[in-house]
Amino acid sequence: MDISSEQHSQHISRQFNQELEGLKTHLMAMGGLVEKQILDALTALLDGNGELAEEVRRFDHEVNEMQLQLDDECTHILARRQPAASDLRLVLAVIRAASDLERMGDEADKIARHALALMGGQHNDRGFVEIRRVGAMVRDMVRNALTAFARFDTKLALEVRRADTEVDNEYKSALRSLVTFMMEDPASISGVLDVLWVLRALERIGDHADNLAESVIYLVKGLDLRHTHLRDLDEKDLDDIG
Amino acid sequence: MDISSEQHSQHISRQFNQELEGLKTHLMAMGGLVEKQILDALTALLDGNGELAEEVRRFDHEVNEMQLQLDDECTHILARRQPAASDLRLVLAVIRAASDLERMGDEADKIARHALALMGGQHNDRGFVEIRRVGAMVRDMVRNALTAFARFDTKLALEVRRADTEVDNEYKSALRSLVTFMMEDPASISGVLDVLWVLRALERIGDHADNLAESVIYLVKGLDLRHTHLRDLDEKDLDDIG
Repeated sequence: MDISSEQHSQHISRQFNQELEGLKTHLMAMGGLVEKQILDALTALLDGNGELAEEVRRFDHEVNEMQLQLDDECTHILARRQPAASDLRLVLAVIRAASDLERMGDEADKIARHALALMGGQHNDRGFVEIRRVGAMVRDMVRNALTAFARFDTKLALEVRRADTEVDNEYKSALRSLVTFMMEDPASISGVLDVLWVLRALERIGDHADNLAESVIYLVKGLDLRHTHLRDLDEKDLDDIG
Repeated sequence: MDISSEQHSQHISRQFNQELEGLKTHLMAMGGLVEKQILDALTALLDGNGELAEEVRRFDHEVNEMQLQLDDECTHILARRQPAASDLRLVLAVIRAASDLERMGDEADKIARHALALMGGQHNDRGFVEIRRVGAMVRDMVRNALTAFARFDTKLALEVRRADTEVDNEYKSALRSLVTFMMEDPASISGVLDVLWVLRALERIGDHADNLAESVIYLVKGLDLRHTHLRDLDEKDLDDIG
């Protein structure tokens, strides 16, 4: 290879690396917005702040835009750069992750909608303790999943996967106590159902954070862990992953 | 190009076409299984058939397997064939579609789980009329979305998108009548909640069928209609798409 064509190919590969870095940066920006949407939706609900809930609803649009842009970037990279091996895995992991983040955004929007419904009704704060608790757990999961992605940290990704089981348990126990409450006080049903939908939305955000964590493991190790339960992996597998 | 290298490149391109055809065939096979899962879950619930519900739960695993295999096929094609333009769109649309089908499968599994819960309790058939109605609409959407994908039929894809609005309306009206019923008969709450979760699962299957239809439009026209409401498109746009 003569010097000028070597320079040319170095130039190309530097550009390519910049594009891949760009993908990660834009995914993290999208993640940051989604984290804010979840926090704002929860704050709006717990503080009865209608304006904040409306703001969350307006911003859902931005989240959607960011997904479309990320998908475009990925498609262009696939078409022009024809990445292989770990670069290809990165691009596919970003497509998956952006889809999970967009769905988390949808759930934040739902929480804001139910927050507004609750403010319009006569609901007391029954179930708010549970929302606060599950909400904090789920926000931790999302933050850790994004950090794991940024740092390619599979140990942290596995922690996210473990936390999902705890969230599911909390969610089920909250559900049971709310059903009992509705039976005792039928006039509360409509409001308590809004609380139930919010808990369900949080539980789904947790599922998507779990998916994000799986994408990190796929990305770093080339292992596809979707549909694999942690209990089906033995200690050695877990060590290998971490 | 001499004759043998031309034969070689024809050979490669025939293989490549076969691989792309294989993707479509396998996606349709996965779609067929998911359709069956949805039908079986609904039948199990409406007929109180516990064995059938258990079978749906066991088969969810197969749906997951099919998604992993399709994703593998797609990754290999991207890495080895480096497809461009419409071939690249096909591969990306298959990845998206397989993810939507897998989530529909999850919802069918949830319906089967709630069917078993209902059989274990003392629920009468309150809400079953609504489940039957929404279930039939949603099954039509799934079938049409799959047909639209198989035939690259954007007109049919647009019909699916329109049907989703009807499903949402039916779902909301069913929800209201069930809330009223719970208030009148608090002893029924636990069972009626199972019915509510089933309706929510059906509504989500409809959303995923809508996504599938969007993938068809992306595939055929290169237009990304996610996050675009039909009401934001004028008649001319719709003609262009159809």
